[in-house]
Amino acid sequence: MSIERIQGGVTAAKGFKAACCAAGIKYQGRTDMAMLYSDAPCAVAGTFTSNVVKAAPVIWDRDIVKNSGVARAVVVNAGIANAATGPAGLDTCRQTADCAAEALGIPADQVLLGSTGVIGPNLPMDRIAAGVAAMAGALSDTPEAGTDASRAIMTTDTVNKECAVAFELPAAGGQGAVKVHLGGMSKGSGMIHPNMCTMLGYVTTDCAIDRALLQRTLSAVVPDTFNMISVDGDTSTNDTLLLLANGAAGNAPIAGEGEAYETFVEALFTVCRELAVKMAGDGEGATHLMEMRVTGADTKDHARALARSVVGSSLVKAMVFGKDANCGRILCALGYAGVDFDPAVIELYLVGEKEDLCFYRDGRVQDFDEEKALAMLSEKAVRFVCDMAMGDAEATAWGCDLTYDYVKINGDYRS
Amino acid sequence: MSIERIQGGVTAAKGFKAACCAAGIKYQGRTDMAMLYSDAPCAVAGTFTSNVVKAAPVIWDRDIVKNSGVARAVVVNAGIANAATGPAGLDTCRQTADCAAEALGIPADQVLLGSTGVIGPNLPMDRIAAGVAAMAGALSDTPEAGTDASRAIMTTDTVNKECAVAFELPAAGGQGAVKVHLGGMSKGSGMIHPNMCTMLGYVTTDCAIDRALLQRTLSAVVPDTFNMISVDGDTSTNDTLLLLANGAAGNAPIAGEGEAYETFVEALFTVCRELAVKMAGDGEGATHLMEMRVTGADTKDHARALARSVVGSSLVKAMVFGKDANCGRILCALGYAGVDFDPAVIELYLVGEKEDLCFYRDGRVQDFDEEKALAMLSEKAVRFVCDMAMGDAEATAWGCDLTYDYVKINGDYRS
Repeated sequence: MSIERIQGGVTAAKGFKAACCAAGIKYQGRTDMAMLYSDAPCAVAGTFTSNVVKAAPVIWDRDIVKNSGVARAVVVNAGIANAATGPAGLDTCRQTADCAAEALGIPADQVLLGSTGVIGPNLPMDRIAAGVAAMAGALSDTPEAGTDASRAIMTTDTVNKECAVAFELPAAGGQGAVKVHLGGMSKGSGMIHPNMCTMLGYVTTDCAIDRALLQRTLSAVVPDTFNMISVDGDTSTNDTLLLLANGAAGNAPIAGEGEAYETFVEALFTVCRELAVKMAGDGEGATHLMEMRVTGADTKDHARALARSVVGSSLVKAMVFGKDANCGRILCALGYAGVDFDPAVIELYLVGEKEDLCFYRDGRVQDFDEEKALAMLSEKAVRFVCDMAMGDAEATAWGCDLTYDYVKINGDYRS
Repeated sequence: MSIERIQGGVTAAKGFKAACCAAGIKYQGRTDMAMLYSDAPCAVAGTFTSNVVKAAPVIWDRDIVKNSGVARAVVVNAGIANAATGPAGLDTCRQTADCAAEALGIPADQVLLGSTGVIGPNLPMDRIAAGVAAMAGALSDTPEAGTDASRAIMTTDTVNKECAVAFELPAAGGQGAVKVHLGGMSKGSGMIHPNMCTMLGYVTTDCAIDRALLQRTLSAVVPDTFNMISVDGDTSTNDTLLLLANGAAGNAPIAGEGEAYETFVEALFTVCRELAVKMAGDGEGATHLMEMRVTGADTKDHARALARSVVGSSLVKAMVFGKDANCGRILCALGYAGVDFDPAVIELYLVGEKEDLCFYRDGRVQDFDEEKALAMLSEKAVRFVCDMAMGDAEATAWGCDLTYDYVKINGDYRS
């Protein structure tokens, strides 16, 4: 299987269009709404926040994914989360879907919704309605339309996030191969933690694939991508990841496991991992991307728990910000991950381009070259690896440093 | 039962002496070692870090508590944690205990040890030995000696922490009552999280009490005191809480549950809660103490988990720092505590001296007076209460805000 990186995001796949607008929901002088639209009905898969307090659009989308599993459009706004808004919040969802349905000439229960921003306030329905109408008339399948949409859904993000790939699958009818596309966009910067972050992610593909299988691919890919990033340990009320497949590529529909399925999973993994890592590196106030790889664990779950514990540690995050090789904190974070291991046999390294620096081995912190460590900790991406010496399982988690700016951004988020 | 607050700390109980010295282990121009000593052998109880990576003194103390359960002295140092030091670290423990045993004329296996500071380096044994010898000759039972000891064990703490109480119990022999004392000191500021923090805590009492019962009192009190505070979510390698009882008060020994036992538990709870809250309020860089009380939960464990989730949330902590009434973040933190509840029926309040401010009710964020909220959030202690409307269980957790100074302190801790 060969997965090719291509330019673009949500409009990379055939038959998908996007639009955005400045609806003035909370931000001034920037776009704050996005719409995705597919010429043909899509099979849709999704994963949502595990938070008990679920935002209204999460409840709305979950129903669609669970029941019909078919969608044609997505409407997203930034600025207000439509969470903790009670029955009024669900009314807003219904009205927004009705507006989009009328403007696009599709059923309202094929309109997915997403919101991100402040928890509590109600959405201004008049501005939402005006935005939906404007976007329905401005849909475009250009790469620029996808990029603009990825910008419109940003909150405290400093850069937009998109990624796309292409790959070949057998054509429908059995004659040769067709090119299939899969691309996505995401936003997320604060309130980011394993098991979905305050993130919204939308991935579109023109692949023809069975709906149940589509959900299975998403469930296979999320544990090692979106669920392996952490910015601040806060799992939000609004986390949503949607995957829409419209079949426009003309491939022989994937109806079971096998080579085509594996290729599709690999493509989805590539896009989801890149979107996830981009979110981790763009954590609120972040100056470094932090990567923690755990090898030699006894089980995959243990490897994941160990890696996530490190990228979630405030002390490790502050140490990365300070470029301080205080490696005892990494050991400490491994130690409280809830996984048993033998501290006498594990080995911890700071990973470099040319060589790795051994921080810990033989049960004790090693003498290492502090200048080399400082140089390596001054890179934009800081990478650690720990061999647990227990088995073959491994996992990687991504996070960012904890900075003055994180505190500043979150000390006064509402204003 | 009547528990009276009294001045003092670890020397408040009869027969306990303390000393400290400037051993020059890491800090300059301040004391950095403390010694506690009891005229008579003490029954000892303890709780220790759950971190898989345990510092050498934790391993040392745990053996004593588990095996003989008898101690006469405690030697503590600040600056270096003696963690991740391998077999050399345990050698240092043995040598330190031998020094103290010789200087005090007691068995080495009755010397408890504690260390706090940077993980990795070895302790300088010559300075430790000189410090032990100096302290053995300077022991005093004055309140000042206790206070000085509580200062010597500080790391990034900004204030020393001590607390003492007195209460009456029936005298041995059955004639009237005797006064019993219980006092303690603790340190802890960063790496503080439920299930023991980077904290060292030492509580002494002249109460006569059965050793097994002593451990039971500690286990009864810790879950709602030291395990209910969080500064940064990091459970350290060195957490230790020791309780020493020498029986010098002359009370009828407590040998089973009953009124005397209940009084003792209440006294211990009072001291442990005060020490714990003092640590939470002195969290690294903190400008506010945060208290989260959960009422109406279905079980005690759920109440604790909900309360701890809120005080552990980086976003809630940053919001308290910014005096920003962004109450959706509290809801969000309750929602990912791993406890099921109905968001439509819970009620969340900001607690004031005169009146409480309703943040959330009837499934939605309420309109509240922002000026009043700002005034209440400007107090040194910020208190929230949430009624889960499920049952009668309640719990309180304490934490602090997340500030620029936390990041600064931890960005370059080793230097």
